[in-house]
Amino acid sequence: MSALLEQLIEALRVLPGVGPKSAQRMAYHVLERDRDGGRRLAETLAAAVERIGHCARCRDFSETEVCATCASAARDAYLLCAVESPADRLAIEQATGYRGLYFVLQGRLSPLDGIGPRELGLDRLAARLAEGEVQELIIATNPTVEGEATAHYLAQLARQHKVRPSRLAHGVPLGGELEYVDRGTLSHAFGSRSEMP
Amino acid sequence: MSALLEQLIEALRVLPGVGPKSAQRMAYHVLERDRDGGRRLAETLAAAVERIGHCARCRDFSETEVCATCASAARDAYLLCAVESPADRLAIEQATGYRGLYFVLQGRLSPLDGIGPRELGLDRLAARLAEGEVQELIIATNPTVEGEATAHYLAQLARQHKVRPSRLAHGVPLGGELEYVDRGTLSHAFGSRSEMP
Ligand SMILES: [Zn+2]
Ligand SMILES: [Zn+2]
Repeated sequence: MSALLEQLIEALRVLPGVGPKSAQRMAYHVLERDRDGGRRLAETLAAAVERIGHCARCRDFSETEVCATCASAARDAYLLCAVESPADRLAIEQATGYRGLYFVLQGRLSPLDGIGPRELGLDRLAARLAEGEVQELIIATNPTVEGEATAHYLAQLARQHKVRPSRLAHGVPLGGELEYVDRGTLSHAFGSRSEMP
Repeated sequence: MSALLEQLIEALRVLPGVGPKSAQRMAYHVLERDRDGGRRLAETLAAAVERIGHCARCRDFSETEVCATCASAARDAYLLCAVESPADRLAIEQATGYRGLYFVLQGRLSPLDGIGPRELGLDRLAARLAEGEVQELIIATNPTVEGEATAHYLAQLARQHKVRPSRLAHGVPLGGELEYVDRGTLSHAFGSRSEMP
């Protein structure tokens, strides 16, 4: 087999869920049927990896210093929703009618992996809460052990700044990943979130 | 969402079996965890789409005018195996101990789709058989209706040039795609191929 083709098959395995067999199918498909699509993917991927960084305000992916959501005057600044990942943020945005702002932790507290408050940007979140504009912190971490620990930490942080912490209602399956919950369940859970005691 | 990120998710869908949800997962995964891998994929894909063409002799993918297999003195030039696709060629190469040469049709006869002998390079195959070196044409098209029709056409072509046509033994499941047959079955079928009547 062509050395370059072997390299392509190997390189495709960087994508999650792509084993040797499907990497091979992908490479052959692009070369046989869609070279234009392959060229476009190569260019877009190179540009994305180079230019997409993190929003200075919410830590979501952004090409600009501050993302479009944070910059929008149409969002309610008194509501802030903390999520673990950009994918969770997107799931909530697509499933619910939420019009507040977000804070993307880019992880969850995990002392054994060296992930503490600093790595999650909680100093920046604390400064944000101290500004006094946020009235409710909606904590939408995943219902896992580490997600729960993170939620409790965030709730304390909120209370320290006189901000009301709340959580999504039961309905999100235990041990599941928010990102894969169906829209209906997620929307319902979001709507009936409860204040944290 | 960042416009560039949306473009990346859209561009990833050029890959077979990748829907909107998995394209999103792939984009997030690369941006969050493996930008170096993403950069490498972009470069390799761009190079592959630009530089991989077809071998002038066997029509398999090749970066060079003639591929390494066709150029190798260690292969038996009296055996020629006709397959529909590069993926089928690779499956046979990996599963069997075959040491002959290949001819990749890049399709199968399909008059309704405008695919005739010319599109499959059969003029070139005929010239190759006329050279007199090939003694056996192993026909390894898929066991589908069109694959069978192609096989019969190839068998006639072989006989016209006093070349013995043979087919893979029964064992390949009917209606199945060669590419997905397990190695053992494929190796057995290849070994017990029969001369065509
Ligand atoms: Zn932002
Ligand atoms: Zn070749």
